[in-house]
Amino acid sequence: MLVESIKNLREILIKHKSTSESRIGFVPTMGYLHEGHLSLINKAKVDNTFVVVSVFVNPTQFSPGEDYENYPRNIENDYKLAMIAGADVVFYPSVEEIYPEGASTFVEVEGSIVMKLCAHSRPSHFKGVTTVVNKLFNIVKPDNVYFGQKDAQQCMVIKKMVSDLHIDINVVVCPIIREFDGLALSSRNTYLNKKEREQSILLYKSLVQAKLVFDNGINDVKTIKETIRNIIQKSNLAQIEYIEILGIENFETINVIDRRAIALVAVKFGSTRLIDNVIIEKE
Amino acid sequence: MLVESIKNLREILIKHKSTSESRIGFVPTMGYLHEGHLSLINKAKVDNTFVVVSVFVNPTQFSPGEDYENYPRNIENDYKLAMIAGADVVFYPSVEEIYPEGASTFVEVEGSIVMKLCAHSRPSHFKGVTTVVNKLFNIVKPDNVYFGQKDAQQCMVIKKMVSDLHIDINVVVCPIIREFDGLALSSRNTYLNKKEREQSILLYKSLVQAKLVFDNGINDVKTIKETIRNIIQKSNLAQIEYIEILGIENFETINVIDRRAIALVAVKFGSTRLIDNVIIEKE
Repeated sequence: MLVESIKNLREILIKHKSTSESRIGFVPTMGYLHEGHLSLINKAKVDNTFVVVSVFVNPTQFSPGEDYENYPRNIENDYKLAMIAGADVVFYPSVEEIYPEGASTFVEVEGSIVMKLCAHSRPSHFKGVTTVVNKLFNIVKPDNVYFGQKDAQQCMVIKKMVSDLHIDINVVVCPIIREFDGLALSSRNTYLNKKEREQSILLYKSLVQAKLVFDNGINDVKTIKETIRNIIQKSNLAQIEYIEILGIENFETINVIDRRAIALVAVKFGSTRLIDNVIIEKE
Repeated sequence: MLVESIKNLREILIKHKSTSESRIGFVPTMGYLHEGHLSLINKAKVDNTFVVVSVFVNPTQFSPGEDYENYPRNIENDYKLAMIAGADVVFYPSVEEIYPEGASTFVEVEGSIVMKLCAHSRPSHFKGVTTVVNKLFNIVKPDNVYFGQKDAQQCMVIKKMVSDLHIDINVVVCPIIREFDGLALSSRNTYLNKKEREQSILLYKSLVQAKLVFDNGINDVKTIKETIRNIIQKSNLAQIEYIEILGIENFETINVIDRRAIALVAVKFGSTRLIDNVIIEKE
């Protein structure tokens, strides 16, 4: 079922909850669904009695000059894909439904987790993310919510918000889904031209190489970051925004990888910004 | 029952909800309960099947130099009074329970409602209020929540947060309860010495006079504010912080009272800050 109003969605959810022991699963998306999203919906279907997928391109998480207007949209296709993957409801609200006129309340995680990485190029991005996710949580009131590990910093920030605000929702982070050649799936991949698409595989290649280097006994962060940089720089189109290796718990800065860390990259090809990450750990 | 941990409170609430058609009523307080609080608990008892009263002196809503450390506390008495008034649970968490180490997520209403009145002397006050109330909402998940009209701006800000964030909770604002001589009940009244207590009744007197003046056909805001000021200034101890007459919907600035408005005052006696308000309206 496609539902556009909060009121209708609430009625449907109340009805479902009244029938039996319900568990509501929620997959918030910006639409233009790919296999990455569908893997979240599949997982939600297994874990819950009812699955809500939201499709909402959230204006407040785009910085001025970013691709809000041009962000790819295709609700008909999204609806079909989501329902096949296991959604019970696709929630497709208007901007006015989520941000009624004069809405001026924001939810913000402050501190080190949000100040790093993507925050440099997108300063108010996470404030937009936490605000809209908080609103959607209040509307859907799920038991479990599903996010993709591709947006690693987003997962971290949302877990922090949930924990700090005592939100009674279980956050499930699901693995990155990749193309045949390793490129992490993203709705923005559609922006890449042929040359950019070819060179974009260097992101994943560089991260795999970082793991290999660590497996071979090198645990110095600076050296591993250089390895990543050298590989990405083989592309003449790649503009590196950041290459980072951080602690897995709080994205804390580290100089040496002890047992586990996360390697993250953000690279622009033309105006298309891609991110990717891998967990580096001792087997 | 006195409950100190979120975990225990959640277990109790889940148990209650499983038994029948439950309606949870919630009265958040900073303790040192007086008849004003008890009137909220009474109302909650009538409307709901289960009533949670929280007693938590919230550090983040006090500005530096304010009375956080000295704010009056008496949990034994609060517990007794709340239970007699109709509470099923008194939730009495520690600061660490509500703000675990490293907690850095805040909920903030921006814009005109929070920029006026109390915000001038207490700039981060409402950010502390909305953050803690949001946390408590996520913990208690009530159907109805009860606040006193005495904190008129707080009621306004919380209603705005609830509406903006699509929080599915009904906010009930209850009338101000007063002493025999008109002074609005407040836990801070206990700070007043004998002289200050005597002169403090001028706040309510001035507001009653404002209503009278309006009933007699004067609707010019400037004139009515002067009336209020003249009465409060009869006290040689009163330091006026603000006298305002605002629109009732959004605390918008008005020059003339059409049908309804709210008159609000904040006055310091020594270091004790008192607030009061009345609705001014055509019969």
